[in-house]
Amino acid sequence: MTENYRTFSNGVPMSTVSVEEGRDGREPGRQTVAILGSGDYSRSLAGRLVRAGFPVAVGSRDPDRNARFFTQGAAVTNRRAALSGAGLVFVAIHRENYPALQADRDALAGKILIDVSNNTEIHEGESNAEYLARSFPDSTVVKGFNVLSAWSLSSGLFGGSKEVFICSDDNNARKTVMQLAQDLGFVPVDYGSLRAAREIEAIPLRLLPSWHLALKMFLGVFIIFFLYCLYRVVIFRAITGTNQASHIPVSVMNMTFAGTAITLLCLVYIPGIFAAFTQLYNGTKYKRFPNWLDKWMLARKQLGLLSLLASIVHAFLSFMIWSPSYYARLFEQTATPSGDVKYGKLRWSGETFLLFGALSLFLMTVLGVSSIPSVTNAMNWREFNLVQSKLGWAVLIFAIVHNAVYGAEVFTLPGLFSSYTIAVFQLTLVLPAILVLMKVVISLPCVGSRVDRIRRGWERNKPPSRVAAPEDPQEETSLMS
Amino acid sequence: MTENYRTFSNGVPMSTVSVEEGRDGREPGRQTVAILGSGDYSRSLAGRLVRAGFPVAVGSRDPDRNARFFTQGAAVTNRRAALSGAGLVFVAIHRENYPALQADRDALAGKILIDVSNNTEIHEGESNAEYLARSFPDSTVVKGFNVLSAWSLSSGLFGGSKEVFICSDDNNARKTVMQLAQDLGFVPVDYGSLRAAREIEAIPLRLLPSWHLALKMFLGVFIIFFLYCLYRVVIFRAITGTNQASHIPVSVMNMTFAGTAITLLCLVYIPGIFAAFTQLYNGTKYKRFPNWLDKWMLARKQLGLLSLLASIVHAFLSFMIWSPSYYARLFEQTATPSGDVKYGKLRWSGETFLLFGALSLFLMTVLGVSSIPSVTNAMNWREFNLVQSKLGWAVLIFAIVHNAVYGAEVFTLPGLFSSYTIAVFQLTLVLPAILVLMKVVISLPCVGSRVDRIRRGWERNKPPSRVAAPEDPQEETSLMS
Amino acid sequence: MTENYRTFSNGVPMSTVSVEEGRDGREPGRQTVAILGSGDYSRSLAGRLVRAGFPVAVGSRDPDRNARFFTQGAAVTNRRAALSGAGLVFVAIHRENYPALQADRDALAGKILIDVSNNTEIHEGESNAEYLARSFPDSTVVKGFNVLSAWSLSSGLFGGSKEVFICSDDNNARKTVMQLAQDLGFVPVDYGSLRAAREIEAIPLRLLPSWHLALKMFLGVFIIFFLYCLYRVVIFRAITGTNQASHIPVSVMNMTFAGTAITLLCLVYIPGIFAAFTQLYNGTKYKRFPNWLDKWMLARKQLGLLSLLASIVHAFLSFMIWSPSYYARLFEQTATPSGDVKYGKLRWSGETFLLFGALSLFLMTVLGVSSIPSVTNAMNWREFNLVQSKLGWAVLIFAIVHNAVYGAEVFTLPGLFSSYTIAVFQLTLVLPAILVLMKVVISLPCVGSRVDRIRRGWERNKPPSRVAAPEDPQEETSLMS
Repeated sequence: MTENYRTFSNGVPMSTVSVEEGRDGREPGRQTVAILGSGDYSRSLAGRLVRAGFPVAVGSRDPDRNARFFTQGAAVTNRRAALSGAGLVFVAIHRENYPALQADRDALAGKILIDVSNNTEIHEGESNAEYLARSFPDSTVVKGFNVLSAWSLSSGLFGGSKEVFICSDDNNARKTVMQLAQDLGFVPVDYGSLRAAREIEAIPLRLLPSWHLALKMFLGVFIIFFLYCLYRVVIFRAITGTNQASHIPVSVMNMTFAGTAITLLCLVYIPGIFAAFTQLYNGTKYKRFPNWLDKWMLARKQLGLLSLLASIVHAFLSFMIWSPSYYARLFEQTATPSGDVKYGKLRWSGETFLLFGALSLFLMTVLGVSSIPSVTNAMNWREFNLVQSKLGWAVLIFAIVHNAVYGAEVFTLPGLFSSYTIAVFQLTLVLPAILVLMKVVISLPCVGSRVDRIRRGWERNKPPSRVAAPEDPQEETSLMS
Repeated sequence: MTENYRTFSNGVPMSTVSVEEGRDGREPGRQTVAILGSGDYSRSLAGRLVRAGFPVAVGSRDPDRNARFFTQGAAVTNRRAALSGAGLVFVAIHRENYPALQADRDALAGKILIDVSNNTEIHEGESNAEYLARSFPDSTVVKGFNVLSAWSLSSGLFGGSKEVFICSDDNNARKTVMQLAQDLGFVPVDYGSLRAAREIEAIPLRLLPSWHLALKMFLGVFIIFFLYCLYRVVIFRAITGTNQASHIPVSVMNMTFAGTAITLLCLVYIPGIFAAFTQLYNGTKYKRFPNWLDKWMLARKQLGLLSLLASIVHAFLSFMIWSPSYYARLFEQTATPSGDVKYGKLRWSGETFLLFGALSLFLMTVLGVSSIPSVTNAMNWREFNLVQSKLGWAVLIFAIVHNAVYGAEVFTLPGLFSSYTIAVFQLTLVLPAILVLMKVVISLPCVGSRVDRIRRGWERNKPPSRVAAPEDPQEETSLMS
Repeated sequence: MTENYRTFSNGVPMSTVSVEEGRDGREPGRQTVAILGSGDYSRSLAGRLVRAGFPVAVGSRDPDRNARFFTQGAAVTNRRAALSGAGLVFVAIHRENYPALQADRDALAGKILIDVSNNTEIHEGESNAEYLARSFPDSTVVKGFNVLSAWSLSSGLFGGSKEVFICSDDNNARKTVMQLAQDLGFVPVDYGSLRAAREIEAIPLRLLPSWHLALKMFLGVFIIFFLYCLYRVVIFRAITGTNQASHIPVSVMNMTFAGTAITLLCLVYIPGIFAAFTQLYNGTKYKRFPNWLDKWMLARKQLGLLSLLASIVHAFLSFMIWSPSYYARLFEQTATPSGDVKYGKLRWSGETFLLFGALSLFLMTVLGVSSIPSVTNAMNWREFNLVQSKLGWAVLIFAIVHNAVYGAEVFTLPGLFSSYTIAVFQLTLVLPAILVLMKVVISLPCVGSRVDRIRRGWERNKPPSRVAAPEDPQEETSLMS
């Protein structure tokens, strides 16, 4: 079912599913491919092979029971029968069942065994494929196809990544299987020796590794801001006698998300600046960055997207509490005959505040959209760089103005410092201020030109001739900073 | 023009269009390819063939007039001349014009005819390709390339699906054409015998088949909620004398969209639960699900997206009427000296209500984004499952809280039941309550563990040894439930 | 770093980066590939070649220093050593350094040189590749691989466009390099003779060419509306003594974005209508459209997306000023005992106004999503046409109603014309009105049927027999209009 779902998530309509039923475009002179195991994966694989014109023999423990699950093009039989006359053997069974294959050890000898297995959790040391190779020294083991789901195999229209990672200690076997992958409509990627099976088996177990660091940073920033706002808005006032607890869900959360959004955005652009300074300091680009900086760089896109999400929640919450009751000072005020205050339209500050908020959120959304893989891939570097770098800085500037105008408005409030802390909007502005300052420095002609030279291959401790040294024509001198 | 548009919709900039003009990278020793017909498709195809280095001869009724439309690399001539010396012949004319080809029957004999035609509506029975084969028994007919638009052919940068579906009763002819497709930069998919042309010709005629069921469910749910809200808010009150008709467009619609959104979200997760219970009941996963359940499963993604859209409209409408006039009970109230009520900030309930609304909408958007094909394809199963399943349930829980807090607030209102019906928010909560209950049951260790065993291949009516039976290593034991 | 970023923007997790380190799946009997230059690009290329099983020799000015940057599979040595025994030579150095290669002229003779260079700005005349060919007449020059970034080369999982554009005056050399591209997992596109290198080198320098026209139109429309609103809301009233300057940021901007949004949407559908009329006038579809119309057609998608963005900003700003202070006439009004007006819920007009605004924005978002490449590619023409054409017109109609209802409401205001100008909402409706009128005309049976006939190949100045002339079976008779 999940696979159906996955298929659908790739926009493949039901009708296509029936497609691979009952095909038999068997190509003349193609050698039989055997499949051991009769699970969903075997069934889908069989269907795909038959459609691609391969004679298929499925080796099942219980052929009679399982035959009905297979495309009629495939011969479902017992193992020995399946193996006889097959040169390629897909081993589509669990690692723990490999020993059971010893019974057919002789039948497997001299054949190419394709280990398609995956593990349920990452385990160190020997991979399934290496284990299989050790257990059947007379056979040639190739690892591959494990990244495919049963459905990506069976659905002819599957729009997903068609890359399959293949490795083996036998070059010819590897080439044979890579050719097979191509015949089945996939893009084989050569991973070299069988030891690489450890990497290949780890791929399907990945759980958004690229998000770990970004999410940690998000959480950290969020908690800091939340506690700070909590103190300013609730705890401190509670001391002074007014209970604001009922305003935690939106008022406090809203400030928190706002602060988090702008801070994360800064965290997207700071590493680029650091990188530039590091290169300046090293006087070369050929020296590795410290590990933490590398990691941070690789988390930038995720940080940007989390910043966008925080901004959206901030906007949403702001909409709902956008009223004189919450933002009195941004509204025109007149005294009613009955003596109390009547609120009218927004004041200049209020409207400016909103406009810049709107513009930065809206440009940020464009940034987010441009991060959708298929959109990114429609852009060349210059375009990507323009959007991600220039536009990103515009968003940041707008967000700063948005925040500053609001701040300027509430700045005059008595008791701003009465809580022995700076206002949230001030705290929020610290990091952006530092970032902009650094950016200005790095953009000064004297500094900037040197950074560019370094990025074009120049090195401080080399004779000037080096400047003209052959270098990467593809180099992008404009970092994401 | 539409094609231009389509091309653009794939991000191909104008400049590339000129690209295939005036190329002639003719490969030595490649056999001439003939094209019959001089429409847009023929022109684009000719351009693509020439660029790929094939000698091209176009057979036109009126060469002199049509030549100007073709890339200079192609020889535009009359049919007989085009056919002479060509082994492969693209038949790029309408089915109704096939008889006109009988004049060149002898010239077509022994050649491979590629039928690229489409129909304007689905018609049962014989496909165009089969009809062509019947009309020209001395030629070998191959169906293919019909899913390509003139522009996907002509634009070298076209980013769309590159799969072309090919079938023929002659394996060698099919292989030849599949090779040709590959030479042109497409991914051939083998559909087996010529009868499959019926399927292949139906593909371009599909009209969002995967959405039919989901849209029907959406409509059904929407209408039910609309009528119910209409009764509660307008009709019933009209009886009691207050006219609320003017509040149908937003107040009533808003309730309706809210109810629809949360109900559709439930409909995404219910089938998974049903599937689990069915498997428990059957004691095996090897028994087909009832047809209606299969269909429902396949509509889940669409249901989820429709739920997201309903949520967005609901949020939008809520923003606009979010004021004490509509939601008095969620605001702090104080009596003014002048005697009438003055509304202040939100009460605790109001803020909580909003926060959970915001969070569920925002998580739901993440879900929606993760359903964009190119995003989905960047994820492996575990990641996809985490997002679609875990996150989805979080959205549901948040939505329930959002609704319940609001309900709790209005619950005390006099006259809640006065209309002899339960409140909308109550109606809205019925299905989620049932779903959560079922989910809890299925998650109980005793039940859950058995479901997992079944999904790993275990069967009630089999000897225990079966538990270790070879099975699908790719199996995902966590359904989307 | 940027490349890391780019890699990430394609969803490739860090872990895969290590992948190509230390592979050596050298294929037996493959000829050595030489790379001149030791920049990032060379390093990544070397890694990719080694992984694909090619023996690689890197020619560096300073092998000892640079060796550490290369995968251990590659032999980093001096140029002469690298060239000896290599048949294919990647020239990965800057154009200005080509002369430096003259020293190894003899070693390069008879070899295939692959020019992968790019320029930092578009320069007319001779391309780098042609320059290289002129400088080394004894070698065969092939242009290619320049569209790839260092990272798209090194990352096995890179999800981006895999197309590489290749051209050369030597067909065999071109074929060899195209084969190499395929072996490396890319999709070669044949660009013919070496002169095409000018086009190929221009590709990475493109800066969103498809957006230029649309952005100009957007800017033009935006400025016109802004000035008009500025006059109506601020300048004129200033004359009459009321200062509204403080409402420029939101009130004026909001009107401006609203007008821009609906106008741009019209500009999406007008060219289609023009095209139809032009074809009617010409009596054939085989006559080129005027250039401006072609350009306009190709800008439609971008215009649509800009219209969506304007709508979003408009919605955002409207949310924030949505109150009786700004839209008094849309709210129910009651007089308070204290004599001044008290505002209640929305009036019928207010709610209708909102509903249609919400619906059009929401359908427009669906349109936008369907324009994401990977979503578009999951649709066939009919589906794409349904969404882009039918849905688009629905959006337009809803937007018109949204605007008209509001207008009808304020229409009665005294002083509407007092400013000697029509109201903004009226100005906004002019273009939509004209468009709808034209659409109605073109849809009249008598007119429409003729347009269809023309699009199916019929021509006024041809004998009726032509009607049955062979034509494009792929033709879409329903334009985006």
